[in-house]
Order: sequence, then C-alpha cells, then structure tokens
Amino acid sequence: MIVTVCLNPAIDVTYRVPELSVGRSHRVREVHARAGGKGINVARVLHQLAEPVTIAGLCGGTTGAEIAADLQRSGLRAVLTPISGQSRRTVTVVDAREATVLNEPGPQVSAAEWAAFGTAFSELVQAVRVVVMSGSVPPGCPDTSYAELVATARANGAAVVLDAEGEQLRHALGARPDVAKPNAVEVAHVFGRPVTTRRDALDAAQLLCDRGASTGIVSLGAEGFVAVTPSAAYDVRLPRQIPGNQTGAGDALAAALARGLARDDPWPELIADGAAVSAAAVAVPVAGGVATDIMAELRPGVVIEEV
Amino acid sequence: MIVTVCLNPAIDVTYRVPELSVGRSHRVREVHARAGGKGINVARVLHQLAEPVTIAGLCGGTTGAEIAADLQRSGLRAVLTPISGQSRRTVTVVDAREATVLNEPGPQVSAAEWAAFGTAFSELVQAVRVVVMSGSVPPGCPDTSYAELVATARANGAAVVLDAEGEQLRHALGARPDVAKPNAVEVAHVFGRPVTTRRDALDAAQLLCDRGASTGIVSLGAEGFVAVTPSAAYDVRLPRQIPGNQTGAGDALAAALARGLARDDPWPELIADGAAVSAAAVAVPVAGGVATDIMAELRPGVVIEEV
Repeated sequence: MIVTVCLNPAIDVTYRVPELSVGRSHRVREVHARAGGKGINVARVLHQLAEPVTIAGLCGGTTGAEIAADLQRSGLRAVLTPISGQSRRTVTVVDAREATVLNEPGPQVSAAEWAAFGTAFSELVQAVRVVVMSGSVPPGCPDTSYAELVATARANGAAVVLDAEGEQLRHALGARPDVAKPNAVEVAHVFGRPVTTRRDALDAAQLLCDRGASTGIVSLGAEGFVAVTPSAAYDVRLPRQIPGNQTGAGDALAAALARGLARDDPWPELIADGAAVSAAAVAVPVAGGVATDIMAELRPGVVIEEV
Repeated sequence: MIVTVCLNPAIDVTYRVPELSVGRSHRVREVHARAGGKGINVARVLHQLAEPVTIAGLCGGTTGAEIAADLQRSGLRAVLTPISGQSRRTVTVVDAREATVLNEPGPQVSAAEWAAFGTAFSELVQAVRVVVMSGSVPPGCPDTSYAELVATARANGAAVVLDAEGEQLRHALGARPDVAKPNAVEVAHVFGRPVTTRRDALDAAQLLCDRGASTGIVSLGAEGFVAVTPSAAYDVRLPRQIPGNQTGAGDALAAALARGLARDDPWPELIADGAAVSAAAVAVPVAGGVATDIMAELRPGVVIEEV
C-alpha cells in the first residue's frame, strides 16, 4: 500500500468563460469542481494505475466536507484529520486562449490539530511500503512538518518520496527521505544557486543527496529530468514532446516513483517508467490523470543515459 | 413584516490580489465570503434599518448550507426551500485598480421544487404587509415565476415591490405588482426601446404602469430615478454625487420602497427616502448595507420635482 500526504487539499474549481477581461463582469458558462492538491493528484494517478493508495490529509469546513465527498465519489480512500479552519479552494478561469489561476491561502492549523494528524499518520504508516509527501503545507504547521513525517515513515519501515519546496524541503532532507524530487525552480531556490543547464540540475540532484536524500531527482518539465541514485546518475529524456498541460506532470512522476519503490523495481526501469507516466500526464487536461495509451507508446523510447 | 424573495441566492466571494493578470497564477491575499443575491441584499438593508424581514429562498448543496449558516450568523430570518442542485457562488477579484466578477450559473430547479417553494411562500405571506421580489431566477423555474408569486402575494393582501428583468418582468407586470422598479437598461431591453434621457425613463415608467404596475420606477444610477405613481409623476435627483460602489444601490432603493409601503408613507416622502437610502448604499463597499450618516445627511436635500 502507498500513502500520499496532502496537508493542504483544495477544491479545484474550473470556470469556463468566452473571454476573461479584467474589470468586467462575466457569466460563467461551465463550472467544474473536484478535490485537488498535489497529494490528492498523486493518489489519483496511483488509483488509475491500479495501485492501492490511501490519502492522509487535513480537512475542515464546508470545503473540507466537499473534498471528502469528492474523494469518496472517486473511490479514493482517505484518512482526513478534521481542522476547525476552512480548507481552501482554487479557481482557474479558462477562456479560449489562457488559464488564469487564483489560489486561496490555506486554513490556519493549530498545534493540537497538527499533533492529531501526527498520531493518525503514525497509525496509518505501520503497514505501508511507500509514503509520498508532496505539495504545500498550510499556515500554522511547523517548518519541520515534512521532516517529522519523513522520520515517522522511516521509523515504520516505509520508503519516502518527497516533493516539497522551501524550508519544508530544507528540513526534510535531514530526515533522509528515499527520494527528493523538487523541480529546477524549487531546487534553485532552496540551494540559492541557478539551475539552468542539465549540468546544474545534476549538481543540484547530487546536493539533494549530500544533504540527506538517498536519491535526488530534479525535474525539468518537458525536458525530462536528472536523477542521482545510490548506484548511478542518470540523464532522462523523452522520445518526443507531448503538447498539453504541464501542471500534473510532477505529481505523475511522484506516483510512478512511489509505485516503482513499492515493487522494488531496479532504478533504470523505475526512472524510465517515471518519465513515461509523467509525460503521459501532460496529455490530460487536468492534473491527476495519465493518458495510458501515450504512456505505453512512450515507454520504450525513453532515453536514459548514465552520466 | 416584509418578505424578500431570493430564488437564486449565492455565496459572494471576494478575492483580494495585488494585480489580476490574465494567463497568470495568483496567490489570493484575502478571502471574504458572505451570502448574497439581490433578495438577500434587500433583506440586509431592511435589517439594518430595523425593519422585521424574512427571506424566502431556494437553497441547495454545500453552498446552500453555507448560505443558511451565513444568514443565521447575520441574524436574518429565512425560510429556505431545499433543492437538490448546488446553489451558486460568485467570485469578485479585486486588485488595486479594478473588480472582475465571475458569476456562476444558478442550479437547475425541478418542477416539484418550484411547487414546494410556492407552497412555502403561500404560507409565509399570510401575515405580511410587503413582499420584495428581486434578482435572477434559476434555470428550471418558469418564466412566469414572479407572475405567480405576485398573484399569490396580492391574493393574501400583501403589496409587492418587483425588481426583475426580461421575461420575468414582462409576465409579472400582468399580475399587477404595486411597484415595478427595473433600471434603465433593463426597462429598455424589455420594451425594446432606448432609454437614454430622463424623458425616455419617464415614458418607460408610464409604460410599466400601462402594462400593470400601480407605480413604475426607472432607476438611473447616480442620476436618481423617475417614478409614475397612482397620484403623480416625479423626477428625483440627489443633492450631490456619492462616490463608491453602485451595485447595491438598486437593492437599497427596493428596501426603502418596501419599508415606505409597509408603513403607508405618502409617495413624496417614500420616494425621497428611497433616493437617500439608495445613495447611502453607494458609500458602502459591498451590496447589502447603507451608510446611515450619509442617508441622514442627504435626505433633506433630495430634489423631487412633480412632472
């Protein structure tokens, strides 16, 4: 079983309008709403890939109730620790040309609520092979939130895939996650050095390992990713560019890595799967899904170079 | 007691961002949410003016539950007929310069739900002096919705203030409301003739009476309004322009007219009150409130000319 942590879940709302114009009033033609946040999106991909998965999250208010109801409708198992604050919404306004995103801030989480989540998480991870920790952490949770959860998971024998940024990433590396996979922008920010070339990305992946991760992966969007594993370093490219929506690619990569770790796949295979799954997510208009036909088509052509 | 009808209530959400930019992603700095829709805004003004008021509405889903909870927090009495659809939200994105509005479509209402509302409304209006009917009607309700409600109210001896547009207005006039008060744009649309001058507005107000209203009022925003009452026609102007947000002015005018009808005020007084309350709403940043100091200051200076 795989657990995905989603501390700051959301109801992701999409509005379709003919043309968004600042300062004007618009009739929204279509409204779509579903539960989101990186941890939930990772779980959706795993569920689609037929991997047993449970979401561990913090949820509150009427939006929290909507999130719980939507996860149930989607057949996703979730252990949600209640909070008194209101879970957030995101609104994406899509017109004929562009998408404009409005992200509400997360709810305030109290120390008691964070402690209650820790207890629930400790119980949940006892029979788990892999935990994925990804996405933002709501206000009130400590900067060491992911560090604490990595330590708990590892103490219970679970492997950890960490997709975090900023202070959370910095602290959590010290707790020795199995995989840390920020993107190039996030890793550049946390180490305070530019990551523009593949060489920079490889150096940054090595630095993730030096700071505590067993494997460091730096994703480069449509350009693939680089990985420094315990056995070797790899430069990974896709056979062709997939047009579409990059937002869910990182979540799909995290899902593929978790699946590979759960079944003890060798690194080259695990990495090639990750590249194919991640690229196949780009072809799906919303985060949390993969185009399985594209995944199958791309997989044999993934180029892995040991560096 | 006054009843306000709100068939298509909403949760009105306001997002504050530094600058809204189409095609970009934004962190929302502040989120405010409260129950809205014209009928609720009219009730808020009446409540602020210490008039006993009850809202009659259709409400559904988690947004409906949020609306009910917010009305309770505001001390507003409401009789809400449940529907299976999800009540709508509106999102207003406010940056340093402008407000951009996104209005979700209303929920689908079934024939059985509309009939249930009719029954609840019939019971509610039995000891009521005035009913205000204002705002949009959700999909599924008949074009004769307001016409039916006007007939029910009048059969029970209640006076009706109608603030509707389109087909709803056209049909409801035939049911003989006491006051019909569309704005210039709405009345131009329903009669298919331009309303650009005060003379045009006066002709349109007369036409509202010819089609069935006892009193026809056409509001001209910051320029005041014109009224054709059973006794005389009036041109009403404010002593000075109030800078601010015009969106709640029509709701405040409807509230003042209802209050005046409820206490049998003579028309010139009722109209002058309406002008002062309406202008005092402009000084409040959100619809559903009036600046009572400005109302008191403006009231003696309202210019009413019999025409």
